[in-house]
Amino acid sequence: MYKIVQTTGGVCASNGFYADGISAGLKKNNALDMAFIYSENECEIASVFTTNKMYAAPIKHFRAKGSFKTNFVLINSKNANAMTGQAGLEDIDEILSHLENVTNPIMSSTGVIGARLPKQKIIEGMKQFDLTKREPSSASKAIMTTDAFSKEIALKVELDDGKSFSIGAMAKGAGMINPAMATMLCFITTDADVAKQEMQDILDEVTKTTFNAISVDGDTSTNDTVLLLSNAKSGVYDADAFKEALFKVMHFLALEMVRDGEGATKLVTYKVSGAKSDREAEIVAKTLSDSLLVKTALYGEDPNWGRIASTVGASGVEAYEEKLKISFDTHCVYDKGVLNFDEEMEKKCAIVMGHKKFTISCDLGVGKGSFKAYGCDLGHEYVNINADYRT
Amino acid sequence: MYKIVQTTGGVCASNGFYADGISAGLKKNNALDMAFIYSENECEIASVFTTNKMYAAPIKHFRAKGSFKTNFVLINSKNANAMTGQAGLEDIDEILSHLENVTNPIMSSTGVIGARLPKQKIIEGMKQFDLTKREPSSASKAIMTTDAFSKEIALKVELDDGKSFSIGAMAKGAGMINPAMATMLCFITTDADVAKQEMQDILDEVTKTTFNAISVDGDTSTNDTVLLLSNAKSGVYDADAFKEALFKVMHFLALEMVRDGEGATKLVTYKVSGAKSDREAEIVAKTLSDSLLVKTALYGEDPNWGRIASTVGASGVEAYEEKLKISFDTHCVYDKGVLNFDEEMEKKCAIVMGHKKFTISCDLGVGKGSFKAYGCDLGHEYVNINADYRT
Repeated sequence: MYKIVQTTGGVCASNGFYADGISAGLKKNNALDMAFIYSENECEIASVFTTNKMYAAPIKHFRAKGSFKTNFVLINSKNANAMTGQAGLEDIDEILSHLENVTNPIMSSTGVIGARLPKQKIIEGMKQFDLTKREPSSASKAIMTTDAFSKEIALKVELDDGKSFSIGAMAKGAGMINPAMATMLCFITTDADVAKQEMQDILDEVTKTTFNAISVDGDTSTNDTVLLLSNAKSGVYDADAFKEALFKVMHFLALEMVRDGEGATKLVTYKVSGAKSDREAEIVAKTLSDSLLVKTALYGEDPNWGRIASTVGASGVEAYEEKLKISFDTHCVYDKGVLNFDEEMEKKCAIVMGHKKFTISCDLGVGKGSFKAYGCDLGHEYVNINADYRT
Repeated sequence: MYKIVQTTGGVCASNGFYADGISAGLKKNNALDMAFIYSENECEIASVFTTNKMYAAPIKHFRAKGSFKTNFVLINSKNANAMTGQAGLEDIDEILSHLENVTNPIMSSTGVIGARLPKQKIIEGMKQFDLTKREPSSASKAIMTTDAFSKEIALKVELDDGKSFSIGAMAKGAGMINPAMATMLCFITTDADVAKQEMQDILDEVTKTTFNAISVDGDTSTNDTVLLLSNAKSGVYDADAFKEALFKVMHFLALEMVRDGEGATKLVTYKVSGAKSDREAEIVAKTLSDSLLVKTALYGEDPNWGRIASTVGASGVEAYEEKLKISFDTHCVYDKGVLNFDEEMEKKCAIVMGHKKFTISCDLGVGKGSFKAYGCDLGHEYVNINADYRT
């Protein structure tokens, strides 16, 4: 048995990790815009990258290296180094060549697509790095773009024999409406003594129900990255505990991203059950969480269940009007052909939609497939943020 | 040879057709909310319906009748009669039973999903119908829901031998961003002497490049309907001319719907070429026209071509950073790895984006597939309209 407890220190909660954020002048007003994560010893790496065909230079650079260990990650915000071709790769090489006493450094970028990195500013900025610093909150602030708040978490896993290991993480991402610009980045550190392949398998599995439950299939940005670094410093490992803790870390960060959806005021869970398969449930849940009409109805706190039904029907999966059930939290508004949506029910549902968090459930009544997706509403602030992102 | 000329009279431009709109009190303030189309003699019918699994009662009712001719279509707005089960079908039967001296009347509905039709108001309203009226503009106004303007067109086809036939049409639909609520309806009349099956084949073909080029695959509403009625009154037919004229009619109405996209200020053509297949080009074009980030960039008149590239990459089709070309009208901003996006180019593109109409072109450089889709921007007005549609 084991116990998972919350702790502090973000990516530095894991033994032997250091991190900080500095200002290199990429953002205005001396805001933090560059970060590093450093480990005393070399780390095994597990990774998940975007499925976007136009994946950015940092991802190309990482992939070109094949299998390797690292003890250093360099991150910049404001510029994604995407659609920059061979020049973008050469920029990374040149920047990383200015780092001393680190092994196989990795670079990760987020921001505007289609512009060369401000190389000199970055190289100058790196001179501020102090690898003895443990300032995880500064690091998490430095990687923000349109994020309204920084996102970090750390958990400690205590095993029965008194031994323990930790997982710490930071992420950036907002506007999970469509992450094509949000470019989610997530950096996870652990001192657990986990084997590389096992770590990769667990990361892949956990990604499905966390980060991949907050975005629409394949509709990922050029830079989306999850990196998991293990330096094995604790000498301790327990597979079940590791997996559970990693899920908690990634689930928390995924919901933080939804909560920070650009202009979002509500966090909605779409709980789909009774689908022909888990895959069909996933399609429905993500179609709902991505529907503009559902999103705007959420914003207006309008319990317009007809849009839910129409969106289920439009998702293309097996579904029938006479088998469908739709609920807002515990209030069932439509039950297999029976409309329960009188004035009183409308009032009850409007109260539910007034909450910051609630669940919309759809039981398709055709099988045993289920999936939970997470989404937010879409309001004026989303338009404001995205109408002129680059300026 | 033949000549196609614009004429007046909407759905009444075709010989033998009558139409009018009345107010039955479904909408507030005595607005027109019910319409009919009547033909002196029975019409062959071609139809295209939504692919939504939750298709509405009027469509079920139509399909249950099998093959038939009609001379009467009854249309109401404000209530879609969708998700209403067997009761919804019985409501239609009861309403239509009050019509006299018409053959196999069809009912079509648009509006809120998930509420029973206000049957008595509709039955009372029908008493105002005068089948000798030719008021196509009233009819087209009566079928509007969130439309900012009514949509109608009529074309006359003049053959070399002096004979002619006409095609007239009206449509409703706005917010082609995602038509799950917009519920597009289109009614087309013709006095051409066209055979039923040929008419259906041509309608299917023309739908692909018109109404289906303004919405995302399958993401259609519960009620989407195109009805083409032919009473053969002219005794004249020419296949090429008919097809060309029908395309012009449907293309015009499709673009009118985009132009009337809820809160839309711009009409954008997404011209995709060089795809592996026409189908892949279609996927890219529709993914672009549906992208929230592209739409909000359009609204902000921000020539953020990186979002275009990222969306192409996210669409899942074969595409490469080093083969892609992106242009705003004639200005190529990205040419197979070469960034042409300096300050001067940005200004030029911003000018293009200031126009009410422009084209964004993407050449994928991998094959010969091409497709044109049409879209609009997304701004604050969209949020206003959809946040509280039902009230």
